[in-house]
Amino acid sequence: MTQEDNCRKARKKKTPPEITVHRLPFYLRALERMKEAGILITSSKELGEWVGVSAAQIRKDISQFGEFGKQGTGYHTDFLIEKLREILKVDRTWDVAIVGMGDIGHALARYKGCENRGFRVVMLFDTHPEKIGQEVEGLPIRDAATLPEALREANIKVAILSVPSNEAQNAADKLTQGGVKAILSYAPICIHVPEDVRIEYVDPATYLQGMTYYIPDESD
Amino acid sequence: MTQEDNCRKARKKKTPPEITVHRLPFYLRALERMKEAGILITSSKELGEWVGVSAAQIRKDISQFGEFGKQGTGYHTDFLIEKLREILKVDRTWDVAIVGMGDIGHALARYKGCENRGFRVVMLFDTHPEKIGQEVEGLPIRDAATLPEALREANIKVAILSVPSNEAQNAADKLTQGGVKAILSYAPICIHVPEDVRIEYVDPATYLQGMTYYIPDESD
Repeated sequence: MTQEDNCRKARKKKTPPEITVHRLPFYLRALERMKEAGILITSSKELGEWVGVSAAQIRKDISQFGEFGKQGTGYHTDFLIEKLREILKVDRTWDVAIVGMGDIGHALARYKGCENRGFRVVMLFDTHPEKIGQEVEGLPIRDAATLPEALREANIKVAILSVPSNEAQNAADKLTQGGVKAILSYAPICIHVPEDVRIEYVDPATYLQGMTYYIPDESD
Repeated sequence: MTQEDNCRKARKKKTPPEITVHRLPFYLRALERMKEAGILITSSKELGEWVGVSAAQIRKDISQFGEFGKQGTGYHTDFLIEKLREILKVDRTWDVAIVGMGDIGHALARYKGCENRGFRVVMLFDTHPEKIGQEVEGLPIRDAATLPEALREANIKVAILSVPSNEAQNAADKLTQGGVKAILSYAPICIHVPEDVRIEYVDPATYLQGMTYYIPDESD
């Protein structure tokens, strides 16, 4: 499929490109910080400076979802936050399961950075008998053998995968069998999921590689 | 500054836009996986399918750094990997310090996903007396009070920050005093750094918000 076909398809189905959708959480996060800083009205230029993309890109991205600001008046921070939350479907709270209670799983169970941003951890799973039954942040670690059923019963659509690489594909299969539609994986391995399931990878090396580009050589 | 100004400035200085630079590590990662899968020659279309962006975007992004493929012949996977590593400056190995040896710090010190991708963890730091002196993966946890000097002596430019939010700004200040130019922070808080220092945030909520958009509503 050519780029043109893709564009035509996107226009026809009114589906914004994936890369646009992926920028929205960054806009939302910047707006929430701007709100904390007392900024009630903002412009695409100012928002762009907070996010690190051009004002034109911001306007183009946001306009694909509706008319949320006025030419010359800018955006009401609160209103745009509300609209972005609606678009991203985080105007609700998604129950999240964490699978793999090693160092990262524990850190994520204790992490407070997802609160008020659309997610709450409600279930923890591991395969190791000595971990099952232990409590972290008031939640018991469940037996991963119960995975598909437990997720389906609780209608959990979002999961975080923090198991070792060699267990990641098997665990992901159990998640999708349980009805999960969005997986965030911390394992440094590519995982295959059905077409209707989204997967993203937290990969420190990718972040670092995007920064070393900017470090001047010693001889510069 | 208008978008046009930005473009003109970028052309003049031959500085590719930040968003382009940020996509390169994803291209590199896909190419490395393609190589593992035995794909010796690829196209922007195929690479685009692995990464999830359009072929036109790939061609546009890569062409900003030189001519690495031929019309109709595609890219040699190995050659493009080599070139992207050079561009991103990960054709060398960067020494990395981890500051904050809680759950995440431990997980990162043990993480093997950065090996052969340009980074190696060489120093660990924490402020807690009971942790200082302990070893993780053969590296002693050092006293964070020695931070700026230890980093400067070892010429460390890259650091990962995995301290609690309330310690993050102070720790980041010590890193930049020590000569660090790239910081990857796991703390859910915005950190201020000097202009010549890059900072990126690992934020699970941002990833999750980019996926919930695609989860169909129950009533759909």
